[in-house]
Amino acid sequence: MWRDLAPVGRSATSGGYFRQPWASAETELRSWFAEECAARGFTVETDGIGNQVAWWSPESASGPGVLTGSHLDSVLDGGAYDGPLGVASALAAIDVLRDRGFAPDRPVGIGVFVEEEGSRFGRACLGSRLVTGATTWAEARELRDRDGVFLGDAVADAGLDPSAGLLSLERVGTFVELHVEQGRDLVDRDLAVGLASEIWPHGRWRFDFAGQANHAGTTRMEDRHDPMLTYAMTALAASKQARLAGQRATFGRISVEPNGTNAVPSLVTAWLDARASSDDALASLVGEIGRQAGDRAGRDGTALTVTAESVSGSVAFDPELAARLALLGDWPIIPTQAGHDAGILSDAGIPTAMVFVRNPTGISHSPDEHADTADCLAGVEALADVLAELAGP
Amino acid sequence: MWRDLAPVGRSATSGGYFRQPWASAETELRSWFAEECAARGFTVETDGIGNQVAWWSPESASGPGVLTGSHLDSVLDGGAYDGPLGVASALAAIDVLRDRGFAPDRPVGIGVFVEEEGSRFGRACLGSRLVTGATTWAEARELRDRDGVFLGDAVADAGLDPSAGLLSLERVGTFVELHVEQGRDLVDRDLAVGLASEIWPHGRWRFDFAGQANHAGTTRMEDRHDPMLTYAMTALAASKQARLAGQRATFGRISVEPNGTNAVPSLVTAWLDARASSDDALASLVGEIGRQAGDRAGRDGTALTVTAESVSGSVAFDPELAARLALLGDWPIIPTQAGHDAGILSDAGIPTAMVFVRNPTGISHSPDEHADTADCLAGVEALADVLAELAGP
Repeated sequence: MWRDLAPVGRSATSGGYFRQPWASAETELRSWFAEECAARGFTVETDGIGNQVAWWSPESASGPGVLTGSHLDSVLDGGAYDGPLGVASALAAIDVLRDRGFAPDRPVGIGVFVEEEGSRFGRACLGSRLVTGATTWAEARELRDRDGVFLGDAVADAGLDPSAGLLSLERVGTFVELHVEQGRDLVDRDLAVGLASEIWPHGRWRFDFAGQANHAGTTRMEDRHDPMLTYAMTALAASKQARLAGQRATFGRISVEPNGTNAVPSLVTAWLDARASSDDALASLVGEIGRQAGDRAGRDGTALTVTAESVSGSVAFDPELAARLALLGDWPIIPTQAGHDAGILSDAGIPTAMVFVRNPTGISHSPDEHADTADCLAGVEALADVLAELAGP
Repeated sequence: MWRDLAPVGRSATSGGYFRQPWASAETELRSWFAEECAARGFTVETDGIGNQVAWWSPESASGPGVLTGSHLDSVLDGGAYDGPLGVASALAAIDVLRDRGFAPDRPVGIGVFVEEEGSRFGRACLGSRLVTGATTWAEARELRDRDGVFLGDAVADAGLDPSAGLLSLERVGTFVELHVEQGRDLVDRDLAVGLASEIWPHGRWRFDFAGQANHAGTTRMEDRHDPMLTYAMTALAASKQARLAGQRATFGRISVEPNGTNAVPSLVTAWLDARASSDDALASLVGEIGRQAGDRAGRDGTALTVTAESVSGSVAFDPELAARLALLGDWPIIPTQAGHDAGILSDAGIPTAMVFVRNPTGISHSPDEHADTADCLAGVEALADVLAELAGP
């Protein structure tokens, strides 16, 4: 399966992946998933926005099912593992269970959620948010990508019809998402597999720094209102605050008007990604960054507007479920700073767990993202054990 | 004339101008110039890359001529005056001379040079550089714009044929460019018109900051190699150095890879525009900015590459010519920090002067760029006086 997935949406220059939702690479991946399911005798249902689900439901199975799976989209120039590892491992784990001769008491499903990264329309976990009702279609359809395309039009252009309805979670009794770890917790513990305790609260804030366009050569430094300077100080302050507090703050995306070499900019827009170990710590971190940015804007004669684009509170995964599953392999229960569809489903009241697979460098959202094959296979075995525990007698 | 020019290439949202070379707005302006010349009985010659020249050469005139004019392109979201004021004033000044019944001893020409701003292909004064041989066509044709379009293709797509040859400067004995002032020197002196003494040395340097892409949420601050931080510190250092030294340094253009909210960037590319009162001061300024950037890159674990994209030494306009012309109106002789086609022609050995028209705010390269009508008319009268002096008996 990994060989089939490798070339889809991969950049020839960076080796990274560009699997944007409702575009060609992701469409190809959806077809791949449908084929893999068909080869196993499962029928894939695709909902009106492109979420997919397939159920292994032999005669032995009844009642609410166990759903596993992840996502197939990537960030811009992302890695191979973030998302697809959870989908491929789900298929492989069911293969393992069948090889073991396991007959489930409850149906086992594999779900694929769209636009998990939010890298095209800026709203992370959009597919699972729509399914759980955390975001409404009326709101989502109006989102625009960088080219100004409405999400509603992108979905329609991909041949999908949102009025056909969304994936139902009624059959889902439990959700388990396997994911490559995106930090170094398992490396430090020298373990291949772990379970999630919680997701840190996190969010995205748009900072608009408005200044006054002017000639870069003839305008004296003291006559300028240069928003690039306010931004630069804010990016440094965000990093320093996060470092001091043991939290995370990143400015990874920026847009400049008019973005000309010989013009002082009129507008710099930058997006803050911030995460912290508690809701209070996050509010405090973002508040402090905004305060320092505002102070500097006052000195630069620029104007700052901060807009929260998405904020997710902390997610504590079902602690009893995690404790029960941890016994299967003596796995540690560790937190993550990354958002996941599992967090959305957990928030919606579905008992949810996550299985992490060791990442030897901790690098993620990068072409350098990696997991050793032995660890991936250990992840498949672990997921099979988890599914057997949850779908078994 | 100003009413005809006003709507061409103007943004409905910002009110600024987007007159990129070899694109529709600039093509329309070239047609406008040809029509204005035809209405006055002058024939416009357009060379193989779009430079234009028209000569007023009545029977009284012979020998090397006096060329005036400027450019019609703008920076992105630029002002109405930078460039077009010099072209419209040239036409109007000849109207004034005719009204006065002036019969020139020498031909008077109006020139329009393409891609003066370098806002599309990154090479300022490209039209005049090609005409004087400061840049070769073999080199220029390989330049690419932001969309990857080769300059050679853009010129061909505009219906031009570079093999048809370039504008000849053989007939040009003297060049005079009228331009809106881009600083506040004339405002501070309470004068409508001035002459140029020199152009500060200036240039553009590309700073490539290479880091390591990573997940913005899960990567500890201390494990990052974030090139955005190196860039941010460099932008602040450049501003501070320029302010301390009384020079100019600006980062107005930036490009980020992958430019995603939840990814630490792998690469930040930013362009430094720097200008100083002497070649040594410029080298010292850029060297100090590069040194501080390199130090910070060492601390951030990022890699810095600095590439000089274009560097222009100081241009001293013909001092005897300026002194002679200053007597006509008791005009001050002042320096500018902006590059101009006049600098390229001066460097090529043509006696050259510049006439500046007061800019009440000093703002340029911005929708807010302005000159009062009374000052523009004073500029036309001044230019007419200059042309009469140079083309007269």
